[in-house]
Amino acid sequence: MLNKKVARTCYKRTVPKVVDTGERRQRIFEAVFDVVVEAGIGQVTLRAVADAAGLAIGSVRHYFSSRDELIGAASEEVIERITARIAEHRDRLDGSKDRLAIAEDMLCELLPLTELTSREVLVWLEIVTSGRTDPVLSASADRLFTGSRTLAGLIVMHAELVPKSESVLETERLAAMIDGLALRASLHPDQLPPALARSVVRRHLRQLSKA
Amino acid sequence: MLNKKVARTCYKRTVPKVVDTGERRQRIFEAVFDVVVEAGIGQVTLRAVADAAGLAIGSVRHYFSSRDELIGAASEEVIERITARIAEHRDRLDGSKDRLAIAEDMLCELLPLTELTSREVLVWLEIVTSGRTDPVLSASADRLFTGSRTLAGLIVMHAELVPKSESVLETERLAAMIDGLALRASLHPDQLPPALARSVVRRHLRQLSKA
Repeated sequence: MLNKKVARTCYKRTVPKVVDTGERRQRIFEAVFDVVVEAGIGQVTLRAVADAAGLAIGSVRHYFSSRDELIGAASEEVIERITARIAEHRDRLDGSKDRLAIAEDMLCELLPLTELTSREVLVWLEIVTSGRTDPVLSASADRLFTGSRTLAGLIVMHAELVPKSESVLETERLAAMIDGLALRASLHPDQLPPALARSVVRRHLRQLSKA
Repeated sequence: MLNKKVARTCYKRTVPKVVDTGERRQRIFEAVFDVVVEAGIGQVTLRAVADAAGLAIGSVRHYFSSRDELIGAASEEVIERITARIAEHRDRLDGSKDRLAIAEDMLCELLPLTELTSREVLVWLEIVTSGRTDPVLSASADRLFTGSRTLAGLIVMHAELVPKSESVLETERLAAMIDGLALRASLHPDQLPPALARSVVRRHLRQLSKA
C-alpha cells in the first residue's frame, strides 16, 4: 500500500490507479440506468453517462468505445439480471407443492414492485419500445419480448394450469397481462402500487388454475 | 375558378391559395404519425413533419408555432380518434343481449388489428412511454393511461361480468391485459398477429363472465 502511494506521488502520470474492471463496468451500467430512468433512453450518451458515474469520459471510453456499444452492453446486463433472479425461483418450481406461489414470485420479478426491480423494469420498457426504431436495441428488445412469453409458457405448462389445447392462448394472455402490468405500474406507480399489481397477478393465476 | 387562376398568375405573392384549414391540419397530423411510426416520437420536428407532409416548413408553422404545440395537438388528435371509435360501440352496449361481443369490439379498438388502428396504437405507445420523461406529452399520456382503465371498468361493470367486490381487481387486470396486448402486438405483429390477439381478448372476456 505504501509502495503504491509512493509510486502515485512520484510518477503520477505513468502508474495508473488499480481499478477493478468488473466493479467499474457495474458503476458505468448503473449510470446508464440512472440516465434512462431520469431522462429516457434517447438521452444516453457517453458524456451523460460519464457525468452520472462521476467519471471522466475517457474512463467510460476505455470500456465502451461508442454509445452503441455501451447501450448494447447495458441492455444485455438488464436481461442477465432479470434472468438470474427468475432462475432462482425456477429451481424451486419442480416438485414443489406450492406452484402458484412460486409462479407469482417469478412473474413479479418482471414488475416494478421494489426499488431494485423498478429501475430494471423501466429500462426494460425503454428498450422494448425504442428497439422498434433503434437497430442497436432491436436484438435486446426481441429477447425481452420473447422472455416474457417464455416465462409465461413455462408457468402455464409447469403449473399444469390449463389443458394443452389451450396453452398457446393462455401463454399469450399471461405474457400480455404481465407486460401490461409492468407498463402501467412503471408509468403510474401512484395509481397502480406494488400491492395492487401483485394482487392482480395472484388473481390471474388462481383463475387460470380453475379454468 | 378562372378568376383565382388569373389572380394567382398575376399576383402570386399577395393572393394566397385557398386552403381548407381542417384538411390541412389533418394532413399535418398524418405526417406526424408517419414520422412517429417510421422513426419514433423523438424524431418529430417541424422540419421532419413538413417534409413528410410535402409542405414548406412555413405552412406547418402557420398552424403550429412550435414542435411542442404540434406534438401536443397530434397527441390529442389520437385520443379523440380512439375515443370516437369506442363511443360508437358504446352506444350499442346498453340493453344489448350480446354484450361480450360488443365488449370485444370495444377493446379491439385499442389493438393494432387493422392498418388504421395499427398506426394509432403505435402512436399511443410512443406517447405513453415518452410521457414519463417529456413534459409536453405527460397530460396526453395520463389520459391514455386512464382511458384504458375507464374502458376496462365500463366493460367489467356494464357487462355484469363479476361481482362488485371484485371489480377493482378485474378492472386493473383487464386494463393491463389489453395494454400488454397492444404493446406486444404493436412491436411484434409477426409473432402476435391480429387473429391471435382477438382470440386472447375473447378468451379473457369469456373467463371473466364465468368467474
